Amino acid sequence: MDNKFIFKLRVYIEDTDYGQMVYHANYLKYFERARSEWADQAGFGLDWQKAHKVFFVVHSAKIDFLKPARLFEELEVISRITSVGKASIHFAQYLRLVEDPDKILCKAEVRVATVNENTRACALPKAPFFDSMRRLLQ
Amino acid sequence: MDNKFIFKLRVYIEDTDYGQMVYHANYLKYFERARSEWADQAGFGLDWQKAHKVFFVVHSAKIDFLKPARLFEELEVISRITSVGKASIHFAQYLRLVEDPDKILCKAEVRVATVNENTRACALPKAPFFDSMRRLLQ
Amino acid sequence: MDNKFIFKLRVYIEDTDYGQMVYHANYLKYFERARSEWADQAGFGLDWQKAHKVFFVVHSAKIDFLKPARLFEELEVISRITSVGKASIHFAQYLRLVEDPDKILCKAEVRVATVNENTRACALPKAPFFDSMRRLLQ
Amino acid sequence: MDNKFIFKLRVYIEDTDYGQMVYHANYLKYFERARSEWADQAGFGLDWQKAHKVFFVVHSAKIDFLKPARLFEELEVISRITSVGKASIHFAQYLRLVEDPDKILCKAEVRVATVNENTRACALPKAPFFDSMRRLLQ
Repeated sequence: MDNKFIFKLRVYIEDTDYGQMVYHANYLKYFERARSEWADQAGFGLDWQKAHKVFFVVHSAKIDFLKPARLFEELEVISRITSVGKASIHFAQYLRLVEDPDKILCKAEVRVATVNENTRACALPKAPFFDSMRRLLQ
Repeated sequence: MDNKFIFKLRVYIEDTDYGQMVYHANYLKYFERARSEWADQAGFGLDWQKAHKVFFVVHSAKIDFLKPARLFEELEVISRITSVGKASIHFAQYLRLVEDPDKILCKAEVRVATVNENTRACALPKAPFFDSMRRLLQ
Repeated sequence: MDNKFIFKLRVYIEDTDYGQMVYHANYLKYFERARSEWADQAGFGLDWQKAHKVFFVVHSAKIDFLKPARLFEELEVISRITSVGKASIHFAQYLRLVEDPDKILCKAEVRVATVNENTRACALPKAPFFDSMRRLLQ
Repeated sequence: MDNKFIFKLRVYIEDTDYGQMVYHANYLKYFERARSEWADQAGFGLDWQKAHKVFFVVHSAKIDFLKPARLFEELEVISRITSVGKASIHFAQYLRLVEDPDKILCKAEVRVATVNENTRACALPKAPFFDSMRRLLQ
């Protein structure tokens, strides 16, 4: 079981701002794309969420903007789960240049909570994945 | 009955791109904000749409990017209805600088269609406003 | 010489709106991503633009929103050059589902103009590519 | 000297996502709009930044998404400076409903750093405002 997920992306014009770098809020979009791809591959994508009537929403985030990402750069988001609670999953994520993987551009701790269709907190359904992950992280 | 609607806005960092002007797709956002405010004031806002189970969606647009809008400029969108069909409303909209109203930055013709909850085309409900508008535009 | 360029993308949460489909202005982002990738592969990317002090900006667009694109769908943009002017390149672009390529979701005609560093219109530099393209399109 | 700045805004379709609330990264946009308006009114807007060759960039943020903001709601961002460093300004900001000001939707601590034209950290220029603010916050 591998607790490390890599997602590649490229910076487009829409992502930049007048400072000629990626607009700060857009890094959160990159991190979410990576979590969405993780959810899909781990079996917890939108179909699973609808079937279980439980949805992943971002509860809180702590984000450090370390170095600017620039237009057309090839980037990758590295995501790792740091804890699995009763109704939450915590991620540590960072963004780096594909060509210079030691250069971390941005990093974040993101707490994802599980809510029902009325956006009220609800327990994460039982699933072997989450049990394994909890054991792994102990 | 006044067929001219003015909506003011300001350009923020999020709207700009590396060329240091407003990113082209964002002008469509400005035009939609203006149509949303128009819908509210004309009595066809979200509550009306939900009550009648008819929703406004953008069907097509023709847009000319004439001069760049820049960071922190104060702008206004001028909107006018050009025709009202059985299941559509056509708008002519343009964007200008508040301080220099002869300087048109962007203009668009936008056709809004009415759809039901399943995004299928459906007729615009009868309303005195649309009848008056049709007569006015004949 | 192939006048057809395919660019793949996926719909993420950031692209959707409360109607649970892709927000209309975001289709223009998809089309621009495709043109940026085309420019790169054709040799007219940002380095070429900076070296020649000529930049591509969107001059006008005509866009038809035919069917909604939905969250997490795999899409592709098909782009084709329809004419090359003295200071402009015209594109015909459309967006389709990878899994159902006969289903066209959105199509656009986009006119890209060439401007200098002060955003004034300037001639497209001579390049064998553009000459060939002009002949091809006659 | 008032260390509390109020900025009003409205939620538009562009801000929402398929969950029918404001997309999480967009709250950061709201907070930045408020800081931009604050900078203008305090005399540290873009003209001042260009004149002093010092620019404000977001260094880090901690954000709690407490309750969802919904389409067309009227909101206000309350911003307060919590400390002024040699090359940084720290803000505490929160977002609430205009009609129900006890209902806080989102709150953030945002650290803004000062950088020069090459995006390297540089000292905040001397200005009576910052001296007064430092004394006020001691």
